[in-house]
Amino acid sequence: MDRLKRLFSKKNKAKAPREHSSRSFANVWWSVPQSDDTKVCVVMVGLPARGKSLIAGKALRYLAWVGIPARIFNVGTYRRQDTPQPNATFFDPRNPEGERMRRAAAEAAVSDMLRWFKQEDGIVAILDATNSTQDRRRWIHERCLAAGVETLFVESICDDEELIMNNILEVKTTSPDYKGQDPEVAAQDFRNRIRNYEMAYETIGGSEKSYTYVKLINVSSTVIINQIKDYLSSRLVYYIQNLHIKPRSIWLSRHGESEFNLTGKIGGDSMLSERGQAYSRALPGLLKKSGVPPNTKIVIWTSTLRRTIQTAKPLEQETGFEKLEWKALDELDSGVCDGLTYEEIAKMYPDDFIARDEDKYNYRYRGGESYRDVVIRLEPIIMELERSENVIIVTHQAVLRCIYSYFLNVPQEKSPWMEVPLHTLIKLTPRAYGTEEQRFKADIPAVSTWRAKGTSAKHQEFPTGATAAH
Amino acid sequence: MDRLKRLFSKKNKAKAPREHSSRSFANVWWSVPQSDDTKVCVVMVGLPARGKSLIAGKALRYLAWVGIPARIFNVGTYRRQDTPQPNATFFDPRNPEGERMRRAAAEAAVSDMLRWFKQEDGIVAILDATNSTQDRRRWIHERCLAAGVETLFVESICDDEELIMNNILEVKTTSPDYKGQDPEVAAQDFRNRIRNYEMAYETIGGSEKSYTYVKLINVSSTVIINQIKDYLSSRLVYYIQNLHIKPRSIWLSRHGESEFNLTGKIGGDSMLSERGQAYSRALPGLLKKSGVPPNTKIVIWTSTLRRTIQTAKPLEQETGFEKLEWKALDELDSGVCDGLTYEEIAKMYPDDFIARDEDKYNYRYRGGESYRDVVIRLEPIIMELERSENVIIVTHQAVLRCIYSYFLNVPQEKSPWMEVPLHTLIKLTPRAYGTEEQRFKADIPAVSTWRAKGTSAKHQEFPTGATAAH
Repeated sequence: MDRLKRLFSKKNKAKAPREHSSRSFANVWWSVPQSDDTKVCVVMVGLPARGKSLIAGKALRYLAWVGIPARIFNVGTYRRQDTPQPNATFFDPRNPEGERMRRAAAEAAVSDMLRWFKQEDGIVAILDATNSTQDRRRWIHERCLAAGVETLFVESICDDEELIMNNILEVKTTSPDYKGQDPEVAAQDFRNRIRNYEMAYETIGGSEKSYTYVKLINVSSTVIINQIKDYLSSRLVYYIQNLHIKPRSIWLSRHGESEFNLTGKIGGDSMLSERGQAYSRALPGLLKKSGVPPNTKIVIWTSTLRRTIQTAKPLEQETGFEKLEWKALDELDSGVCDGLTYEEIAKMYPDDFIARDEDKYNYRYRGGESYRDVVIRLEPIIMELERSENVIIVTHQAVLRCIYSYFLNVPQEKSPWMEVPLHTLIKLTPRAYGTEEQRFKADIPAVSTWRAKGTSAKHQEFPTGATAAH
Repeated sequence: MDRLKRLFSKKNKAKAPREHSSRSFANVWWSVPQSDDTKVCVVMVGLPARGKSLIAGKALRYLAWVGIPARIFNVGTYRRQDTPQPNATFFDPRNPEGERMRRAAAEAAVSDMLRWFKQEDGIVAILDATNSTQDRRRWIHERCLAAGVETLFVESICDDEELIMNNILEVKTTSPDYKGQDPEVAAQDFRNRIRNYEMAYETIGGSEKSYTYVKLINVSSTVIINQIKDYLSSRLVYYIQNLHIKPRSIWLSRHGESEFNLTGKIGGDSMLSERGQAYSRALPGLLKKSGVPPNTKIVIWTSTLRRTIQTAKPLEQETGFEKLEWKALDELDSGVCDGLTYEEIAKMYPDDFIARDEDKYNYRYRGGESYRDVVIRLEPIIMELERSENVIIVTHQAVLRCIYSYFLNVPQEKSPWMEVPLHTLIKLTPRAYGTEEQRFKADIPAVSTWRAKGTSAKHQEFPTGATAAH
């Protein structure tokens, strides 16, 4: 059976049978073979507080972004059904009752996972648990092998005490295991739990030389990759090797209001308006206000267009931060419509105007780009963002929507309609269980460049009370 | 100073100052930051016959493909100026005169390299030599550090005797060190040379933990990546980790003549003509005739369009080879011109027709793609091709031109005009010093789909005597 193809056909159902209709699907269909049957179980390996859930969550989000059906099976969730708030002795390898219950939880998770592969056409499952012994890993490998599922072991090793403490702090405040408990008691118990795991922990190696695995040592400062066989695993490994678990934030801002914004023209390479210039001068203060830990180095990324470079200039000068200009951050190319207003486009290219509103994600401006095209050229940017630590990106509306959608998991059909107002700084902070978002508005008025479906109004307000797309 | 930007401006000079003119440059400008000053020296490390020159040559070709100024500095070439055909004793670590001369060759190569970085705006240099001791590597690292150049050590380790023998066979027949010598004597001397190197060889490690390096162990079955710091190195490492040095071939074929080919229509999803069907039946024999070592497994790749799937069908059925369908191999999307003939396009969209001929690589069909767009979506295909062994790709004219150009180093401006006739199988075999090409024509007539600049003729012959683009 040909799973990817079947999925593909399902998605295709609602579409008119146009020869090129198949071109309008998720990114994945460009980069994953249609007829590939490969199913992969990503098996996380590592002591508690080594960032396993963070890596699992990111991999899931990446897979969703490229359109691959994926799911996390967290053994802790299964274990909590019987033992919601165990203390450290539960995890002592010399405690047979704890051992039995943890084994039962792993069995329930793996059974559910294999059922999901079989009955729900799953492609990638992520088994999130410590999987800390060779025995446990051999058992998972054999169960998967029997079900025709490849295994990819992802081990996170870390001996940097500061990083581990950071993760402990994160876990004790977010884990359901310690909900409602005194944070200090929770932290102490969690440290004891780690010590219990350490007693039995075996790193991947020895008899496991034939397994496909990645070892991430101290937040990917060293990466060991072993026996990659299939394409899907190679793509996943490339993504995972770029990840790190150091705490950091990513700031997103559009350029300040531009001269084209004032007249409602799209595209171009205009300079900032006076209010836009005021925003560029306010940006260093806004960044500070958003919360930057002392001695934090932030790298500034802009596009190659003048309005983003101008916006970042005062920030660059005041802070001395390094700055990179990326062509891949340039605004969506609107081709023949570059320099026109929406009103002019609606008049000069009425069919195009309607077609774009009907499927904004896939519509390509004549001689220009679609949102999908932008996402494809943004992939190296996303990889580099994952590799980087603190970054502030000053870019354009459509590009910012695509980057934002990656971090906040916004579905493709909603992403082109999202409101991303001018003169607003968005701070994203990756947490163990998702990305935290804060918005900081500069007190400098700007036109609205948001446009509702079906209208060509120049400066329309995002309806108050409307929910954001995510 | 801002090297990439300066280069960028140089390239820009001849262009009219149109707002989007900068969009029409090499692929690199999308994925490399414009304002990045990073310069990288890739330092090859490994015993003779470990595929170092093969890796260096491929990395150079990849860098050219993405538009990054790069050059190989081969220490052997410098050494040959004084010692053109040394025997193994020259490489004995106990031979002080040989040691002195080899050191002098390394010094000459490194000095030339640093001069190139400084005076010719080089971005990536590849230092191709054994660099087999920690002393030698520290010396290179320090020289580079002082010149503001990052080092990326790439060590190839191999203990698979068969692979080493294959490489020895290749070297003794192609290396200038053994030109004109008895192959058996050459092979024996080369084995002795390797033994001399083995005496002094030190793998990367110990005091080198802070270096940025990749270790490729037994043709990348295990890869160790250490301390990647900059973006350029991360992209290079991703490329290099996908490489292997096993002998293999890649076969390229267009689909058989299609019904659209007969009427001169472009695009679409038509079926094969009768002659096209005959080609599909002839393909298994043609592949055999091209030379396939016994017990060779070949994977068949097609696009998702019917004419390629139909072409590969008999091959799939006769051989039982695995087959993958890739959407990324679909023909260049000709947008509104899909299903038209060149004559119709010239009539209906005369400006577009002229614009395309003027800059065929960058011209985007309305609502469709340019060659540049196709190259961007082909990048994962190129990575997977490097990872794979024997592959036969059945695809389309424009896509085949792009893939072929990667392997044979065809410049962007020539690649869209290349002749790739129907009913012809191209066999590419990577060698230590380049890619070997053979073409096998099936004895089944087909229309020509090649078109000269400025014409809209339906079936025009590639002028006899004209040289191919490469």
